Amino acid sequence: MPLYPFWKIRSLLALQYRTSCTITSGNRRKTVTNTEDARFRNCERRIRDALADLLQTKSLTDISVSELSRKAKVSRATFYVHYDNVGDVFDELVGEVMDNVLSFEERFSCENPGCAMHEKPRYCERVRSEKKLAGVVREARFFPSVMALAWEDPDAKTDAATRGINPVVMRAVRLFQMSGCHAVASSEFAQRNDWPRIRRAIDAFIEGGLRALEKA
Amino acid sequence: MPLYPFWKIRSLLALQYRTSCTITSGNRRKTVTNTEDARFRNCERRIRDALADLLQTKSLTDISVSELSRKAKVSRATFYVHYDNVGDVFDELVGEVMDNVLSFEERFSCENPGCAMHEKPRYCERVRSEKKLAGVVREARFFPSVMALAWEDPDAKTDAATRGINPVVMRAVRLFQMSGCHAVASSEFAQRNDWPRIRRAIDAFIEGGLRALEKA
Repeated sequence: MPLYPFWKIRSLLALQYRTSCTITSGNRRKTVTNTEDARFRNCERRIRDALADLLQTKSLTDISVSELSRKAKVSRATFYVHYDNVGDVFDELVGEVMDNVLSFEERFSCENPGCAMHEKPRYCERVRSEKKLAGVVREARFFPSVMALAWEDPDAKTDAATRGINPVVMRAVRLFQMSGCHAVASSEFAQRNDWPRIRRAIDAFIEGGLRALEKA
Repeated sequence: MPLYPFWKIRSLLALQYRTSCTITSGNRRKTVTNTEDARFRNCERRIRDALADLLQTKSLTDISVSELSRKAKVSRATFYVHYDNVGDVFDELVGEVMDNVLSFEERFSCENPGCAMHEKPRYCERVRSEKKLAGVVREARFFPSVMALAWEDPDAKTDAATRGINPVVMRAVRLFQMSGCHAVASSEFAQRNDWPRIRRAIDAFIEGGLRALEKA
């Protein structure tokens, strides 16, 4: 009687996980890097959710790949197919927090005071009210990671040029505005009942600042 | 022959220090808490200068009372006559950094854009260019300590009331503005050759923001 093939034992062991994150093709285990594949994306989702959960109670620097993989119910090997380290997962969560947030450029392109009052949430408000990703927002790495995302934004350069504003000056003002917002939205002010009033004042301040910058 | 009195031995030992920081009255050592006394103030000056020096190369949390006293050439006992802990000394250094800086209220009371352009240095510029107290500015505790100073300022409340602005809103805006300034002035932007241009843009932004807040 031939030995039971090792890859079948591995796939039997994999049954303990409801969804496999590595894709088997035929009877040979194979790493697929087609990031369009639904199972691949589902696996990254599970790893990101596990990290968001862990960050509710502990700090990023205290979370190892082993612990994160265990929580996400994937093997360490599978983890490394998707990410290089825990920090990479964190940066994707930062991208989620920033998803759909009203950008500095959108505010800028608003010609009249108050015109940016459409449906998109502002950074200030998102930072304050985030529930599922609250642990991500609280991390010391959150703000530097947000700024790295903001720097890479190709629209920012175009927008600055269109308005005749030096792109370096524009970046510095963006750092100013986002740091200020971050400080207020993480402070005790954001937990007060009159937060909407505070937020409106900060919004008015930012819009007045942007108008003045265009004139300068 | 009577024994040489112990307090005289102590005062002989004290000669190793050029200036005594505790004040002797008659032949009994006595702690004087008259803070107007020049020797008392000189001693605090030496302790503060020693801390500023130490902070150029190490972090606040790594500096003990023993090390600081040694550097300032005072005894531990003398240190405790003046301060409760190293943090208290630090907070006084923060006050020195903020000395004579153009206040938020002074900016506010400026009716026209650009009118605040008088001789007083701004917070942004002070944070950027401080040399002797550079280590103080770099400490994580610096900004929270500055904000604590700002909260205690009795003029702030009066000013807010005069302008019909809710004092809580005014504090939140101040936190916004100073955090933003602090972030930019501690960033790589502040080391660029075109810093004056960046600083002018930030100033224009703040002034535009304040004007908008008055109208809101």
